[in-house]
Amino acid sequence: MSSKITPAAVSLPKKIKVGVLGATGTVGQRFITLLSEHPWFIIEALGASERSKGKKYIEAVKWKQTIPLSGIGLGGVDGAISSTIDLHSDEGRVADLIVRGCTPEEFQNCQIVFSGLDADAAGEIESAFRSSDIPVFSNAKNYRRDPHVPLIVPLVNPSHLSMISQQQRLHSPPLSKGFIVTNANCSTTGYVIPLAALEKAFGPIESVLVTTMQAISGAGYPGVPSLDILGNVVPYIGGEEEKIEWETLKILGGIIDSDTNHEGTPLKTFDMHQAGGRPSLRVSASCNRVPVIDGHMECVSLRFHRRPPPSPQQVREALRAFHTEIQSLGCPSAPRKAIEVFEEPDRPQPRLDVKGTHNGAAVSVGRIRQCQVLDIKFVVLSDNVSIGAATSSIMNAEYAVLKGIVS
Amino acid sequence: MSSKITPAAVSLPKKIKVGVLGATGTVGQRFITLLSEHPWFIIEALGASERSKGKKYIEAVKWKQTIPLSGIGLGGVDGAISSTIDLHSDEGRVADLIVRGCTPEEFQNCQIVFSGLDADAAGEIESAFRSSDIPVFSNAKNYRRDPHVPLIVPLVNPSHLSMISQQQRLHSPPLSKGFIVTNANCSTTGYVIPLAALEKAFGPIESVLVTTMQAISGAGYPGVPSLDILGNVVPYIGGEEEKIEWETLKILGGIIDSDTNHEGTPLKTFDMHQAGGRPSLRVSASCNRVPVIDGHMECVSLRFHRRPPPSPQQVREALRAFHTEIQSLGCPSAPRKAIEVFEEPDRPQPRLDVKGTHNGAAVSVGRIRQCQVLDIKFVVLSDNVSIGAATSSIMNAEYAVLKGIVS
Amino acid sequence: MSSKITPAAVSLPKKIKVGVLGATGTVGQRFITLLSEHPWFIIEALGASERSKGKKYIEAVKWKQTIPLSGIGLGGVDGAISSTIDLHSDEGRVADLIVRGCTPEEFQNCQIVFSGLDADAAGEIESAFRSSDIPVFSNAKNYRRDPHVPLIVPLVNPSHLSMISQQQRLHSPPLSKGFIVTNANCSTTGYVIPLAALEKAFGPIESVLVTTMQAISGAGYPGVPSLDILGNVVPYIGGEEEKIEWETLKILGGIIDSDTNHEGTPLKTFDMHQAGGRPSLRVSASCNRVPVIDGHMECVSLRFHRRPPPSPQQVREALRAFHTEIQSLGCPSAPRKAIEVFEEPDRPQPRLDVKGTHNGAAVSVGRIRQCQVLDIKFVVLSDNVSIGAATSSIMNAEYAVLKGIVS
Amino acid sequence: MSSKITPAAVSLPKKIKVGVLGATGTVGQRFITLLSEHPWFIIEALGASERSKGKKYIEAVKWKQTIPLSGIGLGGVDGAISSTIDLHSDEGRVADLIVRGCTPEEFQNCQIVFSGLDADAAGEIESAFRSSDIPVFSNAKNYRRDPHVPLIVPLVNPSHLSMISQQQRLHSPPLSKGFIVTNANCSTTGYVIPLAALEKAFGPIESVLVTTMQAISGAGYPGVPSLDILGNVVPYIGGEEEKIEWETLKILGGIIDSDTNHEGTPLKTFDMHQAGGRPSLRVSASCNRVPVIDGHMECVSLRFHRRPPPSPQQVREALRAFHTEIQSLGCPSAPRKAIEVFEEPDRPQPRLDVKGTHNGAAVSVGRIRQCQVLDIKFVVLSDNVSIGAATSSIMNAEYAVLKGIVS
Repeated sequence: MSSKITPAAVSLPKKIKVGVLGATGTVGQRFITLLSEHPWFIIEALGASERSKGKKYIEAVKWKQTIPLSGIGLGGVDGAISSTIDLHSDEGRVADLIVRGCTPEEFQNCQIVFSGLDADAAGEIESAFRSSDIPVFSNAKNYRRDPHVPLIVPLVNPSHLSMISQQQRLHSPPLSKGFIVTNANCSTTGYVIPLAALEKAFGPIESVLVTTMQAISGAGYPGVPSLDILGNVVPYIGGEEEKIEWETLKILGGIIDSDTNHEGTPLKTFDMHQAGGRPSLRVSASCNRVPVIDGHMECVSLRFHRRPPPSPQQVREALRAFHTEIQSLGCPSAPRKAIEVFEEPDRPQPRLDVKGTHNGAAVSVGRIRQCQVLDIKFVVLSDNVSIGAATSSIMNAEYAVLKGIVS
Repeated sequence: MSSKITPAAVSLPKKIKVGVLGATGTVGQRFITLLSEHPWFIIEALGASERSKGKKYIEAVKWKQTIPLSGIGLGGVDGAISSTIDLHSDEGRVADLIVRGCTPEEFQNCQIVFSGLDADAAGEIESAFRSSDIPVFSNAKNYRRDPHVPLIVPLVNPSHLSMISQQQRLHSPPLSKGFIVTNANCSTTGYVIPLAALEKAFGPIESVLVTTMQAISGAGYPGVPSLDILGNVVPYIGGEEEKIEWETLKILGGIIDSDTNHEGTPLKTFDMHQAGGRPSLRVSASCNRVPVIDGHMECVSLRFHRRPPPSPQQVREALRAFHTEIQSLGCPSAPRKAIEVFEEPDRPQPRLDVKGTHNGAAVSVGRIRQCQVLDIKFVVLSDNVSIGAATSSIMNAEYAVLKGIVS
Repeated sequence: MSSKITPAAVSLPKKIKVGVLGATGTVGQRFITLLSEHPWFIIEALGASERSKGKKYIEAVKWKQTIPLSGIGLGGVDGAISSTIDLHSDEGRVADLIVRGCTPEEFQNCQIVFSGLDADAAGEIESAFRSSDIPVFSNAKNYRRDPHVPLIVPLVNPSHLSMISQQQRLHSPPLSKGFIVTNANCSTTGYVIPLAALEKAFGPIESVLVTTMQAISGAGYPGVPSLDILGNVVPYIGGEEEKIEWETLKILGGIIDSDTNHEGTPLKTFDMHQAGGRPSLRVSASCNRVPVIDGHMECVSLRFHRRPPPSPQQVREALRAFHTEIQSLGCPSAPRKAIEVFEEPDRPQPRLDVKGTHNGAAVSVGRIRQCQVLDIKFVVLSDNVSIGAATSSIMNAEYAVLKGIVS
Repeated sequence: MSSKITPAAVSLPKKIKVGVLGATGTVGQRFITLLSEHPWFIIEALGASERSKGKKYIEAVKWKQTIPLSGIGLGGVDGAISSTIDLHSDEGRVADLIVRGCTPEEFQNCQIVFSGLDADAAGEIESAFRSSDIPVFSNAKNYRRDPHVPLIVPLVNPSHLSMISQQQRLHSPPLSKGFIVTNANCSTTGYVIPLAALEKAFGPIESVLVTTMQAISGAGYPGVPSLDILGNVVPYIGGEEEKIEWETLKILGGIIDSDTNHEGTPLKTFDMHQAGGRPSLRVSASCNRVPVIDGHMECVSLRFHRRPPPSPQQVREALRAFHTEIQSLGCPSAPRKAIEVFEEPDRPQPRLDVKGTHNGAAVSVGRIRQCQVLDIKFVVLSDNVSIGAATSSIMNAEYAVLKGIVS
């Protein structure tokens, strides 16, 4: 795989113009908030539905972030962390950008677009951008199952970006720059990171049982009616369990030679536990909505193929030691530590720990102990609006830039 | 077992005088609320700590029930359900009872006492009452692990009351009327009822994984600080996982001949999966506190010994068909249906369904489906302050009355 | 006024067939729940939007009440309170009724219809029913400001029903049976009841400052997004403050001779503090949404015209003594006590006291004390889904039946 | 007044060693969090109860802040904002400090102590520190009513520090450095800032009605039991209304010559609306607890002495223009803007706006509009754990340093 990805240039990347699709939605707002402090990326264009097109962003959006919109700049921030723009400067403000329609023509200046589109719009729009040779990093679910589209959790499988060249080659006509990369569902992202760390240290996992307690922000806005969730638990999130069970296989599987190849071309495919691939992995998920603002909690029990299995202490050390390629490469949004391990018996907790020390870009694991039925159990907390959504898209794009996939 | 328990008299029981220990606490208040509408039991005496002794109950208690204390009568209610006393009658009111100390001397008129005592007080006090030949039905944890004390979930194993004769015989001096019976921890009670139904229908279960989302009322009052739980999940409840894992074995095991008998007397003991008893059962619990007032939700995955296992549809039917001895006998607090099975994909939910149609005396099961790792998974909801606490104690006492164990 | 209302028949009313408009909505569900236990009224027809028309009610509705829909009967319940139907009887169930369109033709058998319609539909539909000579008791806001439509809080101003004859006479062609009666906004209803009690005892109030903390159920379903209200307060409810300030004047004002009369007919009008009517009343409202399921709390400060004003103790006694005509007449839904006065310093509280001892048909007042700026301040709690909505409509209809206005 | 306070030195203050009393409590933790980033102050000593004395801070405290204790340094931070210490440096960490007893002997190195003590301990301890010539800036309520102790809201009346010289002179023996300064109750602090802004612009206010909706963090930890507040409103906070009503008078009053002087010395006293002082001000408060983590919301209605009163637009402009001495002087914790005025109809909201753009050091005002009963009404939001507590103490100390009152 490494041969397919150009090594990163030594020098720091130049400023890169980016667009945001679905800019007025929950995920779009989060993209904008993160990009406004980004050292490389500069917000060039915002796209939304017809209703918003032509308006100033501040008039089109119902802003729901805790940082006021008036303090949000366009990104490309040099030097140290600067969370607010200087109000006296002439620098641009996101608030004043004119919202565009979601068509490739209106984003020709963008080298990358991030998509926070809803699933009902994302399918056609993202495809159109790809066809126009604009790379799309999407948080939408539409192309996650596509056999040519990587489904990437940046702390786990960024190497799957190697599938992009095949995705471009098989497009008609073949593409030179356009592609689609997706990141995973928020509840998958959170728990698959410790799974990856454990597979790296102890070899394949055989089975995983995960019970989630998911925050309301995972459902967007207006999302969950308050009458449904205040003082309540809803033991069902439509389609969520299937997503976790399926996405985990694609993310933790490798890339293998495909049995079927049409037109005689040899093809790569994602290893969904076909013969010849990784040992089987079974996943069972139970998903619940709880009255928490941000932060998905997941109770995980798992069994390794290896007998005897590692001890809780070995698991603890492996999680602490987990270091990933995007950290080594120096992706600016990568957390210093991928997994924060808590020793306190009652931590992590979403209200106290969701942001952690890495602004939600890492995950937290606690209560690592033996499972009486499988081998090991623990709890994992992830920030569903950061690592579980926009932050992962942005890290994927950073990785692609450093690898030369985006120029 | 049946030979050891005298069959119920045909005629309805006479009025039975009962006492409540720990009457000012959360569980004590719940005992009083339930007993005030009971057809047989009449509240004769209330016991609490030294601080409350000698005061009128209304002055000693910080009443936290939704039914006003002024409307709470002494029980022994004839005929139909009457939730409030006639304010013009001369009948006694709980509010006016003088609180007593928790000593057997002050409860000599009581044929039964119910204990809602805290664990730090329950040990000595309950033992003193037993020694004074007063039967104790206790919600406290102190004697649950005692090898001579039954741990009874009334919809599951009331037949374990047969151990009482041995408990009385081994006491020095032997007792004629006194004994201690405990009910289970609230989180155990809820999920062990569907387990019992499934074992009855399909034979032994081999392993169970349960993840709980428990209501704040399970921690009593003042209990959980609001700063800890508002908009939060706490992935830890001290001692709770061990209780579930251990109590399940005692409740679902039978009673067997003991290997060891001192003084040459043949002894019975609870089957904790020793050789010769029931097939092994492994239980793994993960307990969480969630911001819900009443109602413990539990996500359960289980594997049967039987291969192939039953289908989700067979499980559904078995749960619906579950009918227990305390229902057949006519215990007045027994629910018409032990298990309510929901077909809606997003039910049961604690806020909507915790009381159900049986005032919290039954449990609700939903989302019955295949588990990719074990065999079957589902969610169960139980009312932790009813079936999970005082209601079970009262049903145990009703059963004991109908079986002639309490006269 | 009394001369215009026929005295009630001595005998109990016969069964009366009623319809519910907007039957699938939040208020509609509440109407159905209450009517299913009503001694006089029998649910004959349910109306909803085109989308639901023709379906069985159970298939058209997203049922959100804590009593299961399967246990909801058609009402006309004889004798004692019976909260669930006998499942073995042949009696009808609401679940099986076929939903109709909201046209008068489909409700010809109904002697009364209750309207839980949304404001965008209520205007035309309610008018059409009136024109078809079907009496409408509406919870919608559309006709509340109509100078010929009574705005009635049944514990305050049911005598305003005397305006119905003028409403019928001025219709073209004049109506013999049809009319529209509205009840007030939920936040107005709660606090205007103690105001009425105080005006009855101490004469006119000069000014009132009310700050509300309103439950989410007041906004219907889906209503308030959970992201907006969980762990939050929203200091704004669109149009609510104006409603309180205006409705209070209409409800507490009397009926006076109008200055203007067209076609020479002498006309009555509601006293909105014109010359010659009641002394002036100024109302200032500040409305907040809080994360409470049911129950509007309102902090009220007021000043009387009378100098010196009554003492807190006199106010307390006047509120306790408040007894109204609908109670004297024997309206079946009227509470035994209109106002529950709490002495405890920290009560009433919505979670504990919203239903009170009258199933939400009364209001609770607490913390009566001197105000340093006006005269007296206190807090009032009302059940916004009961007395604040459907219960008031039903009490208005009961009163109309007993007065012979509905036959 | 200005003649009594030495002008600030031109040069920046040197590092100043400070202690924190009550360091393990909620307010103490907040003091430590703020001081760890302070440019002048360096944490030298932490004091707590006997139970904690001698332990490392990390072992004595139940840390409840969202920033991990491991990242908390000792303060005296040069240059830009640096929220976490460099983990590789040799710099001290608060976690490793040994907790001391709360006696002056153990704080001899401290030039200032901040007190987050509970009221039951603060009285004696703070007095002992003053007698030992150590200046105390206290968040406790004990000395707020003392006629010689300033009660200071730093954005309102820092000039009251001029009373310190009299406080020192009247002590026996007279003090050269020791004194006690208090800050106000959290609910007083929030709303008195806009009141001060309006009095500055439009002259004296005649009457104020304030209804609060206060966050649970205002009650400390464990504080409010979750069973009392989840999904609920509690219309009572013991002593709170009296505090607001009384403190407002002391804060908004000036300092006047006292009528009574013993030993012939002329004395100054706080103007509590005695003859000769400011025009009368009447305050009426109604206090409620709501299920919000941080942020007190207060609905305020007020009447000016001036007739005609200012318009809502004039009020808006006056609040926006409010600039205070502690801002002009350059106190490092002072916000750039004292009052943030919102135009959106539904803002401010505690969950979104509590920290604002000034990390909780400013207040937010919204919904400025006419009041039908008094003149003007609006809503004010303040961060009860920042400006409402530790932040105000720290600003008071900064002001005292700049004025040369603390050396």
